[in-house]
Amino acid sequence: MDFSSKLLENAVNEMSQLPGIGKRTALRLVLHMLKQPQEQTSQLAAALEKMRNEINFCKNCHNISDLTLCEICANPGRNEKQVCVVEDIRDVMAIENTSQYRGHYHVLGGKISPMDGIGPGDLNIPSLVDKVSNGQVEELIFALSSTMEGDTTNFYIYKQIEGFNVLSTTIARGISVGDELEYADEVTLGRSILNRIPFETSLKS
Amino acid sequence: MDFSSKLLENAVNEMSQLPGIGKRTALRLVLHMLKQPQEQTSQLAAALEKMRNEINFCKNCHNISDLTLCEICANPGRNEKQVCVVEDIRDVMAIENTSQYRGHYHVLGGKISPMDGIGPGDLNIPSLVDKVSNGQVEELIFALSSTMEGDTTNFYIYKQIEGFNVLSTTIARGISVGDELEYADEVTLGRSILNRIPFETSLKS
Repeated sequence: MDFSSKLLENAVNEMSQLPGIGKRTALRLVLHMLKQPQEQTSQLAAALEKMRNEINFCKNCHNISDLTLCEICANPGRNEKQVCVVEDIRDVMAIENTSQYRGHYHVLGGKISPMDGIGPGDLNIPSLVDKVSNGQVEELIFALSSTMEGDTTNFYIYKQIEGFNVLSTTIARGISVGDELEYADEVTLGRSILNRIPFETSLKS
Repeated sequence: MDFSSKLLENAVNEMSQLPGIGKRTALRLVLHMLKQPQEQTSQLAAALEKMRNEINFCKNCHNISDLTLCEICANPGRNEKQVCVVEDIRDVMAIENTSQYRGHYHVLGGKISPMDGIGPGDLNIPSLVDKVSNGQVEELIFALSSTMEGDTTNFYIYKQIEGFNVLSTTIARGISVGDELEYADEVTLGRSILNRIPFETSLKS
Protein backbone atom coordinates (compact mmCIF):
# COMPACT_ATOMS: atom_id res chain seq x y z
CA MET A 1 0.00 0.00 0.00
CA ASP A 2 1.16 3.47 -0.86
CA PHE A 3 0.26 6.01 1.80
CA SER A 4 0.22 9.75 1.35
CA SER A 5 1.27 10.29 4.97
CA LYS A 6 4.04 8.77 7.11
CA LEU A 7 1.98 9.26 10.28
CA LEU A 8 -0.89 7.32 8.79
CA GLU A 9 1.46 4.63 7.49
CA ASN A 10 3.07 4.16 10.91
CA ALA A 11 -0.28 3.90 12.66
CA VAL A 12 -1.53 1.36 10.12
CA ASN A 13 1.65 -0.69 10.33
CA GLU A 14 1.49 -0.84 14.12
CA MET A 15 -2.19 -1.79 14.13
CA SER A 16 -1.66 -4.52 11.56
CA GLN A 17 0.82 -6.25 13.90
CA LEU A 18 -2.19 -7.41 15.91
CA PRO A 19 -3.49 -10.91 15.14
CA GLY A 20 -6.30 -11.09 12.58
CA ILE A 21 -5.87 -7.44 11.56
CA GLY A 22 -4.51 -6.92 8.08
CA LYS A 23 -3.47 -3.66 6.44
CA ARG A 24 -6.93 -2.94 5.07
CA THR A 25 -8.69 -3.47 8.40
CA ALA A 26 -6.00 -1.44 10.15
CA LEU A 27 -6.56 1.43 7.71
CA ARG A 28 -10.31 1.27 8.29
CA LEU A 29 -9.81 1.41 12.07
CA VAL A 30 -7.33 4.27 11.86
CA LEU A 31 -9.58 6.30 9.53
CA HIS A 32 -12.43 5.74 11.99
CA MET A 33 -10.25 7.22 14.76
CA LEU A 34 -9.65 10.29 12.61
CA LYS A 35 -13.39 10.90 12.46
CA GLN A 36 -13.78 10.61 16.25
CA PRO A 37 -12.67 13.24 18.79
CA GLN A 38 -8.95 13.35 19.62
CA GLU A 39 -9.62 12.36 23.25
CA GLN A 40 -10.94 8.97 22.20
CA THR A 41 -7.63 8.00 20.60
CA SER A 42 -5.71 9.41 23.57
CA GLN A 43 -7.81 7.33 25.94
CA LEU A 44 -7.29 4.19 23.87
CA ALA A 45 -3.53 4.77 23.71
CA ALA A 46 -3.32 5.51 27.43
CA ALA A 47 -5.45 2.48 28.41
CA LEU A 48 -3.32 0.12 26.32
CA GLU A 49 -0.02 1.46 27.61
CA LYS A 50 -1.12 1.54 31.26
CA MET A 51 -2.50 -1.99 30.97
CA ARG A 52 0.69 -3.32 29.38
CA ASN A 53 3.05 -1.64 31.86
CA GLU A 54 1.15 -2.06 35.12
CA ILE A 55 -0.60 -5.39 34.71
CA ASN A 56 -0.12 -7.88 37.53
CA PHE A 57 -0.48 -11.62 37.75
CA CYS A 58 -1.85 -13.36 40.85
CA LYS A 59 1.10 -14.96 42.61
CA ASN A 60 -0.94 -18.05 43.42
CA CYS A 61 -2.85 -18.91 40.22
CA HIS A 62 -1.09 -16.63 37.66
CA ASN A 63 -4.39 -15.14 36.52
CA ILE A 64 -4.40 -11.45 35.53
CA SER A 65 -5.17 -9.36 38.60
CA ASP A 66 -4.63 -5.82 39.89
CA LEU A 67 -3.61 -7.11 43.33
CA THR A 68 -0.93 -9.65 44.27
CA LEU A 69 -3.66 -12.18 45.04
CA CYS A 70 -6.64 -12.35 42.66
CA GLU A 71 -10.24 -12.16 43.88
CA ILE A 72 -10.77 -15.90 43.47
CA CYS A 73 -7.64 -16.93 45.37
CA ALA A 74 -8.39 -14.35 48.08
CA ASN A 75 -11.95 -15.59 48.56
CA PRO A 76 -12.07 -17.81 51.70
CA GLY A 77 -15.38 -19.28 50.51
CA ARG A 78 -13.69 -21.15 47.67
CA ASN A 79 -12.15 -24.60 47.94
CA GLU A 80 -8.38 -24.29 47.53
CA LYS A 81 -7.95 -28.07 47.52
CA GLN A 82 -9.64 -28.22 44.12
CA VAL A 83 -7.57 -26.72 41.30
CA CYS A 84 -8.77 -26.30 37.73
CA VAL A 85 -5.93 -26.13 35.17
CA VAL A 86 -6.74 -23.72 32.31
CA GLU A 87 -4.88 -22.05 29.47
CA ASP A 88 -5.63 -18.38 30.05
CA ILE A 89 -7.95 -15.80 31.63
CA ARG A 90 -10.62 -16.32 28.97
CA ASP A 91 -11.12 -19.88 30.18
CA VAL A 92 -11.37 -18.68 33.79
CA MET A 93 -14.03 -16.17 32.70
CA ALA A 94 -15.92 -18.84 30.75
CA ILE A 95 -15.97 -21.29 33.66
CA GLU A 96 -16.87 -18.56 36.17
CA ASN A 97 -19.84 -17.65 33.95
CA THR A 98 -21.31 -21.13 34.45
CA SER A 99 -21.48 -20.60 38.28
CA GLN A 100 -20.84 -24.37 38.60
CA TYR A 101 -17.34 -24.24 40.07
CA ARG A 102 -16.27 -23.07 43.52
CA GLY A 103 -12.62 -24.16 43.54
CA HIS A 104 -9.37 -22.42 42.59
CA TYR A 105 -7.70 -22.11 39.17
CA HIS A 106 -4.20 -22.48 37.84
CA VAL A 107 -3.53 -20.46 34.68
CA LEU A 108 -0.78 -22.01 32.54
CA GLY A 109 -0.47 -19.05 30.17
CA GLY A 110 -0.61 -21.23 27.05
CA LYS A 111 -0.31 -24.79 25.79
CA ILE A 112 2.75 -26.84 24.86
CA SER A 113 3.11 -26.25 21.15
CA PRO A 114 6.45 -27.10 19.52
CA MET A 115 5.17 -25.63 16.23
CA ASP A 116 4.95 -22.19 17.87
CA GLY A 117 8.13 -22.71 19.88
CA ILE A 118 6.27 -23.02 23.21
CA GLY A 119 7.78 -25.66 25.48
CA PRO A 120 6.89 -26.67 29.06
CA GLY A 121 9.46 -24.13 30.32
CA ASP A 122 7.41 -21.24 28.93
CA LEU A 123 4.34 -22.18 30.97
CA ASN A 124 3.45 -21.93 34.67
CA ILE A 125 3.92 -25.66 35.24
CA PRO A 126 6.62 -25.77 38.01
CA SER A 127 4.45 -23.79 40.48
CA LEU A 128 1.59 -26.22 39.81
CA VAL A 129 3.81 -29.25 40.44
CA ASP A 130 5.03 -27.56 43.65
CA LYS A 131 1.46 -27.10 44.88
CA VAL A 132 0.70 -30.77 44.22
CA SER A 133 3.92 -32.09 45.76
CA ASN A 134 3.31 -30.00 48.89
CA GLY A 135 0.00 -31.81 49.33
CA GLN A 136 -2.01 -28.58 48.87
CA VAL A 137 -4.21 -30.13 46.18
CA GLU A 138 -6.76 -32.92 46.44
CA GLU A 139 -8.21 -32.75 42.95
CA LEU A 140 -6.67 -31.42 39.75
CA ILE A 141 -9.23 -30.77 37.01
CA PHE A 142 -7.77 -30.57 33.50
CA ALA A 143 -9.81 -28.06 31.47
CA LEU A 144 -7.64 -27.35 28.43
CA SER A 145 -9.01 -27.23 24.88
CA SER A 146 -9.50 -30.66 23.35
CA THR A 147 -6.77 -30.26 20.74
CA MET A 148 -3.45 -31.96 20.09
CA GLU A 149 -1.66 -29.21 22.05
CA GLY A 150 -4.17 -29.36 24.91
CA ASP A 151 -3.89 -33.14 25.19
CA THR A 152 -0.07 -32.96 25.08
CA THR A 153 -0.04 -30.39 27.87
CA ASN A 154 -2.48 -32.44 29.96
CA PHE A 155 -0.34 -35.53 29.55
CA TYR A 156 2.91 -33.69 30.35
CA ILE A 157 1.48 -32.33 33.60
CA TYR A 158 -0.07 -35.70 34.42
CA LYS A 159 3.36 -37.35 34.12
CA GLN A 160 4.95 -34.66 36.34
CA ILE A 161 2.49 -35.22 39.19
CA GLU A 162 2.36 -39.02 38.87
CA GLY A 163 3.06 -40.63 42.22
CA PHE A 164 1.74 -37.75 44.29
CA ASN A 165 -1.47 -38.30 46.21
CA VAL A 166 -3.85 -36.30 44.02
CA LEU A 167 -6.99 -37.11 42.05
CA SER A 168 -6.67 -36.09 38.39
CA THR A 169 -9.90 -35.48 36.50
CA THR A 170 -10.75 -33.95 33.16
CA ILE A 171 -13.87 -32.10 32.02
CA ALA A 172 -16.39 -34.28 30.14
CA ARG A 173 -16.23 -34.40 26.35
CA GLY A 174 -19.54 -35.13 24.67
CA ILE A 175 -22.43 -33.85 22.62
CA SER A 176 -23.16 -30.15 23.26
CA VAL A 177 -26.47 -29.40 24.92
CA GLY A 178 -29.00 -28.67 22.15
CA ASP A 179 -26.99 -30.42 19.42
CA GLU A 180 -28.48 -32.98 17.04
CA LEU A 181 -26.84 -36.42 17.19
CA GLU A 182 -26.63 -36.83 13.41
CA TYR A 183 -24.31 -33.80 13.09
CA ALA A 184 -21.94 -34.82 15.89
CA ASP A 185 -18.49 -36.07 14.85
CA GLU A 186 -17.67 -39.73 15.41
CA VAL A 187 -14.93 -39.24 17.99
CA THR A 188 -17.08 -37.05 20.22
CA LEU A 189 -20.12 -39.32 19.87
CA GLY A 190 -17.98 -42.40 20.57
CA ARG A 191 -16.51 -40.84 23.71
CA SER A 192 -19.93 -39.73 24.92
CA ILE A 193 -21.13 -43.37 24.71
CA LEU A 194 -18.04 -44.75 26.46
CA ASN A 195 -18.28 -42.13 29.22
CA ARG A 196 -22.03 -42.41 29.74
CA ILE A 197 -23.38 -41.44 33.18
CA PRO A 198 -26.37 -42.67 35.23
CA PHE A 199 -29.57 -41.05 33.95
CA GLU A 200 -30.41 -39.89 37.47
CA THR A 201 -27.19 -37.85 37.57
CA SER A 202 -28.12 -36.02 34.37
CA LEU A 203 -31.44 -35.00 35.90
CA LYS A 204 -29.65 -33.06 38.61
CA SER A 205 -27.55 -30.75 36.41
CA MET B 1 -18.05 -9.83 30.94
CA ASP B 2 -16.56 -9.99 34.38
CA PHE B 3 -12.88 -9.05 34.42
CA SER B 4 -10.47 -9.80 37.21
CA SER B 5 -8.54 -6.58 36.51
CA LYS B 6 -9.65 -2.97 36.01
CA LEU B 7 -6.66 -2.26 33.77
CA LEU B 8 -7.60 -5.13 31.50
CA GLU B 9 -11.25 -4.09 31.52
CA ASN B 10 -10.39 -0.50 30.53
CA ALA B 11 -8.14 -1.62 27.70
CA VAL B 12 -10.80 -4.02 26.39
CA ASN B 13 -13.53 -1.39 26.63
CA GLU B 14 -11.47 1.16 24.70
CA MET B 15 -10.52 -1.34 22.01
CA SER B 16 -14.12 -2.45 21.57
CA GLN B 17 -15.12 1.12 20.67
CA LEU B 18 -13.51 0.52 17.28
CA PRO B 19 -15.86 -0.54 14.47
CA GLY B 20 -16.18 -4.28 13.95
CA ILE B 21 -14.34 -5.09 17.19
CA GLY B 22 -16.50 -6.64 19.90
CA LYS B 23 -15.55 -7.40 23.48
CA ARG B 24 -14.29 -10.89 22.68
CA THR B 25 -12.06 -9.76 19.83
CA ALA B 26 -10.82 -6.85 21.94
CA LEU B 27 -9.90 -9.27 24.74
CA ARG B 28 -8.07 -11.50 22.27
CA LEU B 29 -6.08 -8.52 20.94
CA VAL B 30 -5.25 -7.22 24.41
CA LEU B 31 -4.12 -10.66 25.63
CA HIS B 32 -1.92 -10.89 22.54
CA MET B 33 -0.28 -7.58 23.52
CA LEU B 34 0.45 -9.01 26.97
CA LYS B 35 2.43 -11.84 25.38
CA GLN B 36 4.49 -9.43 23.25
CA PRO B 37 7.30 -7.16 24.54
CA GLN B 38 6.19 -3.95 26.30
CA GLU B 39 7.80 -1.79 23.59
CA GLN B 40 5.39 -3.09 20.99
CA THR B 41 2.38 -1.75 22.87
CA SER B 42 4.19 1.53 23.56
CA GLN B 43 4.94 1.91 19.87
CA LEU B 44 1.35 1.19 18.92
CA ALA B 45 0.02 3.68 21.48
CA ALA B 46 2.52 6.35 20.42
CA ALA B 47 1.84 5.86 16.70
CA LEU B 48 -1.92 6.16 17.19
CA GLU B 49 -1.69 9.24 19.36
CA LYS B 50 0.87 10.99 17.14
CA MET B 51 -1.19 10.22 14.06
CA ARG B 52 -4.40 11.52 15.61
CA ASN B 53 -2.87 14.72 16.96
CA GLU B 54 -0.52 15.69 14.15
CA ILE B 55 -2.33 14.54 11.03
CA ASN B 56 -2.74 17.13 8.28
CA PHE B 57 -5.09 17.44 5.37
CA CYS B 58 -4.02 18.79 1.98
CA LYS B 59 -5.45 22.32 1.70
CA ASN B 60 -6.32 21.75 -1.93
CA CYS B 61 -7.87 18.26 -2.13
CA HIS B 62 -8.43 17.47 1.60
CA ASN B 63 -6.59 14.18 1.32
CA ILE B 64 -4.52 13.07 4.33
CA SER B 65 -1.01 14.44 3.95
CA ASP B 66 1.99 15.32 6.12
CA LEU B 67 2.54 18.59 4.21
CA THR B 68 0.10 21.43 3.50
CA LEU B 69 -0.08 20.29 -0.12
CA CYS B 70 -0.22 16.54 -0.79
CA GLU B 71 2.15 14.81 -3.22
CA ILE B 72 -0.50 14.55 -5.91
CA CYS B 73 -1.53 18.21 -5.77
CA ALA B 74 2.14 19.29 -5.62
CA ASN B 75 3.06 17.22 -8.68
CA PRO B 76 3.29 19.57 -11.71
CA GLY B 77 3.03 16.54 -14.03
CA ARG B 78 -0.61 15.99 -13.11
CA ASN B 79 -3.57 17.64 -14.79
CA GLU B 80 -5.22 20.00 -12.30
CA LYS B 81 -8.10 20.72 -14.69
CA GLN B 82 -9.34 17.17 -14.18
CA VAL B 83 -10.76 16.51 -10.68
CA CYS B 84 -11.94 13.13 -9.43
CA VAL B 85 -14.45 13.34 -6.56
CA VAL B 86 -13.98 10.52 -4.03
CA GLU B 87 -15.16 9.68 -0.54
CA ASP B 88 -11.91 9.13 1.34
CA ILE B 89 -8.22 8.31 1.12
CA ARG B 90 -8.91 4.63 0.48
CA ASP B 91 -10.53 5.51 -2.83
CA VAL B 92 -7.57 7.71 -3.77
CA MET B 93 -5.24 4.79 -3.00
CA ALA B 94 -7.40 2.37 -5.01
CA ILE B 95 -7.50 4.64 -8.08
CA GLU B 96 -3.78 5.44 -7.81
CA ASN B 97 -3.07 1.70 -7.81
CA THR B 98 -4.63 1.38 -11.27
CA SER B 99 -2.06 3.86 -12.75
CA GLN B 100 -4.84 4.94 -15.15
CA TYR B 101 -5.45 8.43 -13.80
CA ARG B 102 -3.17 11.46 -13.97
CA GLY B 103 -5.49 14.22 -12.73
CA HIS B 104 -6.22 15.65 -9.28
CA TYR B 105 -8.61 14.42 -6.58
CA HIS B 106 -11.13 16.03 -4.28
CA VAL B 107 -11.76 14.10 -1.06
CA LEU B 108 -15.23 14.72 0.39
CA GLY B 109 -14.58 12.98 3.69
CA GLY B 110 -17.80 10.94 3.50
CA LYS B 111 -21.14 10.68 1.76
CA ILE B 112 -24.44 12.42 2.45
CA SER B 113 -26.26 10.01 4.75
CA PRO B 114 -29.21 11.34 6.76
CA MET B 115 -29.44 7.97 8.58
CA ASP B 116 -25.99 8.59 10.10
CA GLY B 117 -26.63 12.31 10.57
CA ILE B 118 -24.20 13.33 7.82
CA GLY B 119 -25.48 16.29 5.78
CA PRO B 120 -23.81 18.26 2.95
CA GLY B 121 -22.43 20.69 5.56
CA ASP B 122 -20.26 17.94 7.07
CA LEU B 123 -18.45 17.28 3.79
CA ASN B 124 -15.83 19.20 1.79
CA ILE B 125 -18.36 20.33 -0.81
CA PRO B 126 -18.06 24.19 -0.65
CA SER B 127 -14.36 24.15 -1.62
CA LEU B 128 -15.21 21.92 -4.58
CA VAL B 129 -17.97 24.28 -5.75
CA ASP B 130 -15.51 27.19 -5.36
CA LYS B 131 -12.96 25.44 -7.57
CA VAL B 132 -15.59 24.83 -10.23
CA SER B 133 -17.07 28.34 -10.09
CA ASN B 134 -13.58 29.85 -10.40
CA GLY B 135 -13.19 28.00 -13.70
CA GLN B 136 -10.29 25.91 -12.36
CA VAL B 137 -11.92 22.65 -13.42
CA GLU B 138 -12.65 21.33 -16.91
CA GLU B 139 -13.82 17.84 -16.01
CA LEU B 140 -15.33 16.59 -12.76
CA ILE B 141 -15.28 12.79 -12.46
CA PHE B 142 -17.70 11.36 -9.91
CA ALA B 143 -16.18 8.24 -8.37
CA LEU B 144 -18.31 7.56 -5.28
CA SER B 145 -19.61 4.11 -4.34
CA SER B 146 -22.68 3.08 -6.31
CA THR B 147 -25.03 3.15 -3.31
CA MET B 148 -28.04 5.23 -2.36
CA GLU B 149 -25.77 7.59 -0.35
CA GLY B 150 -23.22 7.80 -3.15
CA ASP B 151 -25.87 8.61 -5.75
CA THR B 152 -27.46 11.23 -3.47
CA THR B 153 -24.10 12.90 -2.94
CA ASN B 154 -23.31 12.86 -6.66
CA PHE B 155 -26.67 14.43 -7.44
CA TYR B 156 -26.35 17.08 -4.73
CA ILE B 157 -22.95 18.20 -6.05
CA TYR B 158 -24.21 18.04 -9.64
CA LYS B 159 -27.04 20.41 -8.74
CA GLN B 160 -24.59 22.81 -7.02
CA ILE B 161 -22.33 23.10 -10.08
CA GLU B 162 -25.15 23.20 -12.64
CA GLY B 163 -24.74 26.21 -14.91
CA PHE B 164 -20.96 26.39 -14.58
CA ASN B 165 -18.90 25.49 -17.60
CA VAL B 166 -17.67 22.05 -16.53
CA LEU B 167 -17.95 18.57 -17.97
CA SER B 168 -19.39 16.13 -15.39
CA THR B 169 -18.61 12.46 -15.88
CA THR B 170 -19.00 9.38 -13.74
CA ILE B 171 -16.97 6.17 -13.67
CA ALA B 172 -18.45 3.32 -15.73
CA ARG B 173 -20.72 0.80 -13.99
CA GLY B 174 -20.74 -2.61 -15.58
CA ILE B 175 -19.71 -6.23 -15.33
CA SER B 176 -16.43 -6.72 -13.46
CA VAL B 177 -13.52 -8.01 -15.52
CA GLY B 178 -13.45 -11.79 -15.12
CA ASP B 179 -17.09 -12.08 -14.00
CA GLU B 180 -19.58 -14.53 -15.51
CA LEU B 181 -22.65 -12.87 -17.05
CA GLU B 182 -25.13 -15.28 -15.49
CA TYR B 183 -24.17 -14.20 -11.98
CA ALA B 184 -24.35 -10.43 -12.64
CA ASP B 185 -27.32 -8.59 -11.13
CA GLU B 186 -29.96 -7.22 -13.50
CA VAL B 187 -29.37 -3.53 -12.81
CA THR B 188 -25.65 -3.76 -13.50
CA LEU B 189 -26.13 -5.90 -16.59
CA GLY B 190 -28.86 -3.55 -17.85
CA ARG B 191 -26.63 -0.52 -17.39
CA SER B 192 -23.70 -2.21 -19.07
CA ILE B 193 -25.87 -2.82 -22.16
CA LEU B 194 -27.22 0.73 -22.23
CA ASN B 195 -23.74 2.20 -21.80
CA ARG B 196 -22.00 -0.09 -24.29
CA ILE B 197 -18.84 1.23 -25.96
CA PRO B 198 -17.26 0.67 -29.40
CA PHE B 199 -15.41 -2.68 -29.47
CA GLU B 200 -12.28 -0.95 -30.74
CA THR B 201 -12.19 1.19 -27.57
CA SER B 202 -12.28 -1.88 -25.35
CA LEU B 203 -9.24 -3.31 -27.17
CA LYS B 204 -7.11 -0.36 -26.08
CA SER B 205 -7.61 -0.70 -22.31
